[in-house]
Amino acid sequence: MHTAASVVGELRAAGELWEPAPGLVALRGETLRLFRALAEMIRLVARGEAAEEWHVPPALTFDTLARADYFASFPQWLTAAAHLDASERELERVAAAAQPAAAAVSALRPTATALQPAICYHVYAALAGTQLDEPVFCAAAGTCWRHEAGRFAPLERGWAFTMQEVVCVGCAADVAAFRTRGIDAAETLARRLGLQPVLAQATDPFFAASTRGRALLQRLRALKHELLLPLGDGRTLAAASFNDHAQFFGDAFVIRDGSGAPATSGCVAFGIERWLLAVLVEHGTDPRNWPVQPLPEPTAARLAS
Amino acid sequence: MHTAASVVGELRAAGELWEPAPGLVALRGETLRLFRALAEMIRLVARGEAAEEWHVPPALTFDTLARADYFASFPQWLTAAAHLDASERELERVAAAAQPAAAAVSALRPTATALQPAICYHVYAALAGTQLDEPVFCAAAGTCWRHEAGRFAPLERGWAFTMQEVVCVGCAADVAAFRTRGIDAAETLARRLGLQPVLAQATDPFFAASTRGRALLQRLRALKHELLLPLGDGRTLAAASFNDHAQFFGDAFVIRDGSGAPATSGCVAFGIERWLLAVLVEHGTDPRNWPVQPLPEPTAARLAS
Repeated sequence: MHTAASVVGELRAAGELWEPAPGLVALRGETLRLFRALAEMIRLVARGEAAEEWHVPPALTFDTLARADYFASFPQWLTAAAHLDASERELERVAAAAQPAAAAVSALRPTATALQPAICYHVYAALAGTQLDEPVFCAAAGTCWRHEAGRFAPLERGWAFTMQEVVCVGCAADVAAFRTRGIDAAETLARRLGLQPVLAQATDPFFAASTRGRALLQRLRALKHELLLPLGDGRTLAAASFNDHAQFFGDAFVIRDGSGAPATSGCVAFGIERWLLAVLVEHGTDPRNWPVQPLPEPTAARLAS
Repeated sequence: MHTAASVVGELRAAGELWEPAPGLVALRGETLRLFRALAEMIRLVARGEAAEEWHVPPALTFDTLARADYFASFPQWLTAAAHLDASERELERVAAAAQPAAAAVSALRPTATALQPAICYHVYAALAGTQLDEPVFCAAAGTCWRHEAGRFAPLERGWAFTMQEVVCVGCAADVAAFRTRGIDAAETLARRLGLQPVLAQATDPFFAASTRGRALLQRLRALKHELLLPLGDGRTLAAASFNDHAQFFGDAFVIRDGSGAPATSGCVAFGIERWLLAVLVEHGTDPRNWPVQPLPEPTAARLAS
């Protein structure tokens, strides 16, 4: 019987998993090949839904997040990309400091760039101000950042982690059907991997201390389900979520559906490291017992020799 | 005759390239498929050299960078990942603010986590304190961050960009041969893509204002070459670099070669967006004229329907 802790301990001992910084995980060896195979399977699920893939950069503006009311919703998770004061004097102070890391901290400039907490904000921002004759379905994957101080656990909950999303923006019926198909596809994938998924209704962990947060919580009342996968010690882990945001983002980003009404949006999101952990907990760390063949090593000949 | 500006203008007009934030580029459509095909070709070049691939997270500690004397070398590029003060009071202040983005800036906590300026620091950190019986060859790709305020140009110079690296840590002869093979492989790839590469000796843009920076510059005197690709208007762009760090990182991270001496290290690095730009400048934005077939769309059937 495997648990998240036993699996992570074995991978650490084998040198296939390590943490270069708190909440950040590196992988190599067979575990990395399994991670990539799972990412590719999940990408194919996403592509089954999406008209096309987008490649989005790892960050977006504070303005985009403000438009999505992110600061009132999840300020606790926010992670920003900050650079140093570019003045020669400040750079010189950092470069010459006896403790340059400490000096660098005090030279950081205020920033207006956030590391993305989810992929789908890029989609709403790109569609802002448009009217959609047809529903938009697109897929994108990337690193997302959510700071959960004191709760980091390798593969289970990282500061940075890998998310595959599929987004639908259209009318309410488009999004409802999209969400149902997403649930079916994720459950099918989990069973193909020998896992026992449980679908559960869920609520986003809004920061509800503020009046505004509470109001949002009421207003969003978004339809959210999560796919829970067993972690082996009676615990489960949300490995995918299926979200209907109603007209929240359509309103916020002024996106209209074919009828001219604010568009409805929904997203299906997979946390790749969590799928890896669930497969390892169910089947162990020996590749011979895995239900999926890791991707073959690329057979590159040296181009020049 | 295409130029970087004309190509980027065409992609923007076609909706295949946009900037969600300053220095950050998103891609879709045929351009994205070409980007992925080039990334895969470059990955195969890297895999031809590397014993294995590593998957590294997008950030590392200030301590690792300090050990590599990064703060004295390139403080101007440094980008950090910062999160908010987790106190209820501060989060409430941000959530309830009339200008939450501005409030968030003032709630950012000092940080000790840097977004990686290059991939290879992860390798030196992971090998710290070890003795290598055999040279290590590994490959890894990821997003790197270098802040070059006022110099951002889409695909040419981004705040965040995609780097494929191959790293060799061993003895001096291992690294010298590795570097030569890397140069050959990159030149061969460029010619296969119909480009006219020029190999040039180069110097890292050390921050030389500080005494320490100048001393480093003397001491490192690293052997560096760059592969320059034409940008169509008489300009060229460094699309790959080939670096021999001598014993600098072996000393800094206490890595020993088989003889017990500080290990020698070298790396070969490819900037994927720059290869994309060079191919587009040479061949234009019409996919029918590209010298490489974009990867086919994955043909995923809906898993559940």
